[in-house]
Amino acid sequence: MSKFKTPIVILNFKTYLESSGNNALKLAKALEIASDESGINMVATPQAADIYRIKDETRIPILAQHIDNVNPGGHTGSNLLECLKEAGIDGSLINHSEKRMTLADIDSTITKLRNNDLFSVVCTNNVNTSEAIANFDPNFIAVEPPELIGTGISVSQAEPEVVEGTVRKVKSINKNIKVLCGAGISTGDDMKAALDLGAEGVLLASGIILSESPEKVLLELVSKM
Amino acid sequence: MSKFKTPIVILNFKTYLESSGNNALKLAKALEIASDESGINMVATPQAADIYRIKDETRIPILAQHIDNVNPGGHTGSNLLECLKEAGIDGSLINHSEKRMTLADIDSTITKLRNNDLFSVVCTNNVNTSEAIANFDPNFIAVEPPELIGTGISVSQAEPEVVEGTVRKVKSINKNIKVLCGAGISTGDDMKAALDLGAEGVLLASGIILSESPEKVLLELVSKM
Amino acid sequence: MSKFKTPIVILNFKTYLESSGNNALKLAKALEIASDESGINMVATPQAADIYRIKDETRIPILAQHIDNVNPGGHTGSNLLECLKEAGIDGSLINHSEKRMTLADIDSTITKLRNNDLFSVVCTNNVNTSEAIANFDPNFIAVEPPELIGTGISVSQAEPEVVEGTVRKVKSINKNIKVLCGAGISTGDDMKAALDLGAEGVLLASGIILSESPEKVLLELVSKM
Amino acid sequence: MSKFKTPIVILNFKTYLESSGNNALKLAKALEIASDESGINMVATPQAADIYRIKDETRIPILAQHIDNVNPGGHTGSNLLECLKEAGIDGSLINHSEKRMTLADIDSTITKLRNNDLFSVVCTNNVNTSEAIANFDPNFIAVEPPELIGTGISVSQAEPEVVEGTVRKVKSINKNIKVLCGAGISTGDDMKAALDLGAEGVLLASGIILSESPEKVLLELVSKM
Repeated sequence: MSKFKTPIVILNFKTYLESSGNNALKLAKALEIASDESGINMVATPQAADIYRIKDETRIPILAQHIDNVNPGGHTGSNLLECLKEAGIDGSLINHSEKRMTLADIDSTITKLRNNDLFSVVCTNNVNTSEAIANFDPNFIAVEPPELIGTGISVSQAEPEVVEGTVRKVKSINKNIKVLCGAGISTGDDMKAALDLGAEGVLLASGIILSESPEKVLLELVSKM
Repeated sequence: MSKFKTPIVILNFKTYLESSGNNALKLAKALEIASDESGINMVATPQAADIYRIKDETRIPILAQHIDNVNPGGHTGSNLLECLKEAGIDGSLINHSEKRMTLADIDSTITKLRNNDLFSVVCTNNVNTSEAIANFDPNFIAVEPPELIGTGISVSQAEPEVVEGTVRKVKSINKNIKVLCGAGISTGDDMKAALDLGAEGVLLASGIILSESPEKVLLELVSKM
Repeated sequence: MSKFKTPIVILNFKTYLESSGNNALKLAKALEIASDESGINMVATPQAADIYRIKDETRIPILAQHIDNVNPGGHTGSNLLECLKEAGIDGSLINHSEKRMTLADIDSTITKLRNNDLFSVVCTNNVNTSEAIANFDPNFIAVEPPELIGTGISVSQAEPEVVEGTVRKVKSINKNIKVLCGAGISTGDDMKAALDLGAEGVLLASGIILSESPEKVLLELVSKM
Repeated sequence: MSKFKTPIVILNFKTYLESSGNNALKLAKALEIASDESGINMVATPQAADIYRIKDETRIPILAQHIDNVNPGGHTGSNLLECLKEAGIDGSLINHSEKRMTLADIDSTITKLRNNDLFSVVCTNNVNTSEAIANFDPNFIAVEPPELIGTGISVSQAEPEVVEGTVRKVKSINKNIKVLCGAGISTGDDMKAALDLGAEGVLLASGIILSESPEKVLLELVSKM
């Protein structure tokens, strides 16, 4: 589990031009440098089409943004776990608020990832759904109040009770599951506040991707730890 | 348009293990050899995660299986046109029966592909929907009665009137659109029958992917032309 | 076709509290009175659960807001055409921008409505998609640029070329299809402008539903005709 | 809670012609008679368009088949909780395998039903997802292995460990939640087996709907209790 040792910084590349294609590779390299310099584990979460190349040209751990819960066969336009694994993923985000999944698909996808020795990072929207997901025994639960996503308002400051409550409920079900803090984290103070609330890492996106120097912002982010 | 000169053979890799990862690369190379030997244009349609590698290691033209109709931005788990283009696609399937799209998304995606100098291959399920799509001016319309997909029963033999009707209606709206015949094509006779009905190529999948020697089946397929 | 004689005013009740349950019945009665007083055909489009009651207590023609393209059988939570017909619909909206449908489902649903002697009112988002839908021979095409829905800015004033273009293209394919103007219509001047552009009616929603006196607004709406 | 006193029989009408419109009313009356004669609570789950009429003409408790997780407003084609409540529902099925919902929507819909004094019956596909749902504190969890739905093979006989495991896990989280047994139940022996495994009722569909005499089959079903 060393690739996913906490505290950890996971960067969701989403579908920005600033994090697609050549820019995705550059961003992955910035993550690699920031991770090497800080000693903090950092993880890239690029679009499916960029996974192979980032795997080929960096040492950064890679998550898929989504896996379609289909078995091998006739499913045009789906992203198959086995294909993403060969391309180089170490795990996957599941149920991001921009790609919500059904309960049955979340359950099945966590199981498939585990059976393939891949990491699962399940996104949830509140304490209640985090508690439900804890029963599925994923590696990480990233709690992100959807109303804060993309706002620059950090959940650790605006709704600390969501982070604390999630940590408490999740740990009471399964101590091995690690809670991440998503939505609005972008500074060292946000990150420190998140860890102080019991989170063991953060899930980031636009705050880093759209910054002028992702590397510098990443280093500042982990500077208070 | 030389990469897509007709008659043409487009192979939809879907999500079979036999056409994922290393197997996708092997299949793309088989397509390349069969294309070189026969002089008939052949096109690979791999999963998103395999596009970059096939582009890097072969000269075969590449289609995406699907493009999500999103603009660059915050859309986790979507496949962005711009990202797929950088990875190496020459165009995309649109509206495959295993990934149906809304009318507005089909319209918008064809336009985006055209504006990016990429080819559009729109799948339709009957004469009626083919006629509707012809108004959007795609490069190709591939008509596939869904009840025949994956059956091994060729549309050119079982429902020739669907192919003929589609060719007639589509050409009456726009002579430049080429009609492909999907569903159940796997032999040289099927292919010849399709072209005799006015189709200018075929869209294939499991019949080739699951065969013992895709290369041999592809060469037999184009042997009667 | 007398129930749908043009010029016509179709009111989409959507899911406002002001147009649900008892309020839906009141709104349907306001439509009935306004229709009787003005001599202009008006049509109610309530939620599925309100159809039976409105049919029972008014003489106003009724459209469903949506029909799921399923056949009778095991489909929990779907709205079946046959069930809605027994409840009292005279037809249905299809492909509203808040309930987009796939191309294949639009085609199939128009056909089913026709085979059941029910009216089809297909919503489209631009000239291009209106032209495509004209091939399916629906009774009405209601063009609504999605960016104007709910804004109070009328399409007949802001984008007259969309209405004119839709009328011209649709009529060139099939003269019997009538074009409606949606999005932002709420005054007599808007309505007159729409008819002057060649539309034969309007599709309305929040501008009427949320007004203090729907009956009065409806009468004002048709006062310039 | 007397309307939902256990043991209970819930009949999902789905979208069969045999349970739509007039037939839905007849079926609801058969449920009412069987309930009166046996003293066992029985519940109708009709399509949205049939709710008002069944409420008006019978005393049988009514569930919706599905509720769309939207708030009042501009949502064409959705089924709003407030509208269904006025039409006469006492609660709703949630997350049926033929209408799977996202985790966030399940959570939110259970809460809305509770706040409206309506009953929630959440469908799940296995022990794992049942356990997760128990955290949301619904009134009922109906476990239905999807592979058995519509087969006539009863879960209580084919996979008793699914029923037992669900009861054990759910009760360990919240003793007030009652577990129902779905999929394949159609005889008195099936029903008795289900109750012996700890279930407090059953969720039925085609086995009753498609029978020649639903009333007789319902009475036989509860005859061994």
